[in-house]
Amino acid sequence: MSAVTTAGGAGILTEAMTSFVQKLDAACEAKRSLLCVGLDPDPQLMPVPDIFDFNRSIIDATHDLVCAFKPNLAFFEAQGLEGLQALKQTIEYIRDISPYVIIIGDAKRGDMGRVSAAYATAMFDHWGLDAVTVHSYMGRESVEPFLGYGGKGAFVLCRTSNLGGGEFQDIQDEAGVPLYQRVALAVNGWGADGNIGLVVGATQPEEMKAVRGSCPQMPILIPGVGSQGGDIHAAVVNGTDALGRRAIINASRSIIYASRGPDYAEAARREATRLRDAINDVLEAEGLGWR
Amino acid sequence: MSAVTTAGGAGILTEAMTSFVQKLDAACEAKRSLLCVGLDPDPQLMPVPDIFDFNRSIIDATHDLVCAFKPNLAFFEAQGLEGLQALKQTIEYIRDISPYVIIIGDAKRGDMGRVSAAYATAMFDHWGLDAVTVHSYMGRESVEPFLGYGGKGAFVLCRTSNLGGGEFQDIQDEAGVPLYQRVALAVNGWGADGNIGLVVGATQPEEMKAVRGSCPQMPILIPGVGSQGGDIHAAVVNGTDALGRRAIINASRSIIYASRGPDYAEAARREATRLRDAINDVLEAEGLGWR
Repeated sequence: MSAVTTAGGAGILTEAMTSFVQKLDAACEAKRSLLCVGLDPDPQLMPVPDIFDFNRSIIDATHDLVCAFKPNLAFFEAQGLEGLQALKQTIEYIRDISPYVIIIGDAKRGDMGRVSAAYATAMFDHWGLDAVTVHSYMGRESVEPFLGYGGKGAFVLCRTSNLGGGEFQDIQDEAGVPLYQRVALAVNGWGADGNIGLVVGATQPEEMKAVRGSCPQMPILIPGVGSQGGDIHAAVVNGTDALGRRAIINASRSIIYASRGPDYAEAARREATRLRDAINDVLEAEGLGWR
Repeated sequence: MSAVTTAGGAGILTEAMTSFVQKLDAACEAKRSLLCVGLDPDPQLMPVPDIFDFNRSIIDATHDLVCAFKPNLAFFEAQGLEGLQALKQTIEYIRDISPYVIIIGDAKRGDMGRVSAAYATAMFDHWGLDAVTVHSYMGRESVEPFLGYGGKGAFVLCRTSNLGGGEFQDIQDEAGVPLYQRVALAVNGWGADGNIGLVVGATQPEEMKAVRGSCPQMPILIPGVGSQGGDIHAAVVNGTDALGRRAIINASRSIIYASRGPDYAEAARREATRLRDAINDVLEAEGLGWR
């Protein structure tokens, strides 16, 4: 393991040369968990006024149960510079408290090459995230700048969990292949060294199965099991790889707003425990439990 | 004209009720210009070290020549909190110096409804932008939160100017209609009250013609005439509406980095003047000049 120079910056030294997927695998094994907690700090829902205080309580209450945290940048940006200061604090706090946890910036960025390179600088060098979610509409060129960082990863939006997600994603090409599958097939050829994954919502079990079939080894970030109502059994069976790994199953609101009262951290821990165990029960039943 | 409550926020009062497109039309008429200057402050290219100092000089040198400025958020985010502070200063400076200019945040955001709503809060309420560029991959639901603000607008990515832009955007559906055209046709039905437009690159003249044919009145943001080499004549002829309006023709690097020396502001003014005049010459030749 040696320090490397990133592709995106002017000779900035990154951490030791471990691929993103190796780090992810290590985090999952260490925690015996595929669960990710989404940090969506919304002032209209938070039981305490300060974003960082809120996040810290949630992190304290759940970090031993999860392989990853996923701050959604929109909720930090909505609070302006103070919100972005809280984002930085939150990432640093996770880093300090838990060496074995992946931090995925849910940022949904994506622009032409030189602009995506600037976003990659922001996400990886400045905020210190391990991975970021990205749009692929502008093609491979728009995703590649996120792939040139040792140990960092990008999750490309494939079939999203939102209600109207199929409007464009399900459009079929002349051969009957839907757009989300075209994206999956393309992305499968872009990555090198375990630095790229896909986002597929738990609300789309059949699409998940098809994507996993096309991309047998790629990590898949799976939102939608909590408040959005996606089925955990289907997410685990269809979303994991042949070994029952490489899926990151995210819940945000159902965990962090499990209670809106002063017991919110305990309630978040209860709900995170329930979800982690539900996921692990499926793995166990499939003969793919943690060793 | 009366103050209105925005759809996105908790009773925040916006400016007077004028539609985005009315504001855009007024800016173009007042300046007799369809030119937009893109603010992409890149420390590796800027002739002065401070982002806000650089932007201020460019704005001072060009604001009377343009209908719009387009800060690309990636370059501000890449400088962390300091960069974002400079973004806020830049937007406030434009607002102070020129009442008739549109500020388009080139942010390429787009997420599920409640998350896009948080981005809209960031872009419109916090940063104070007039419009923002957005991805449509997650469907109408992901764009709608940007449309509920009186006087604000969203430009949906349609056919982008980057070299690999066609990778997904040109995929044809079963009826032979390419994805970018499916997006244009859908977006044409989403807006109300002149609050939505499209992004189509000047490097794609044929695609531009097709999109303008489908969306005769919609504003189109047209990047790619400067460093990317798009043809101005084709952009004006194919991109404007029947009256020679509703196109915002953007150049970034070819203007702001026209000189890398101490004369960079004068050089920017020269290049912006040249582009504005070249656009106006085409309008004049088409019998659609400013009255």
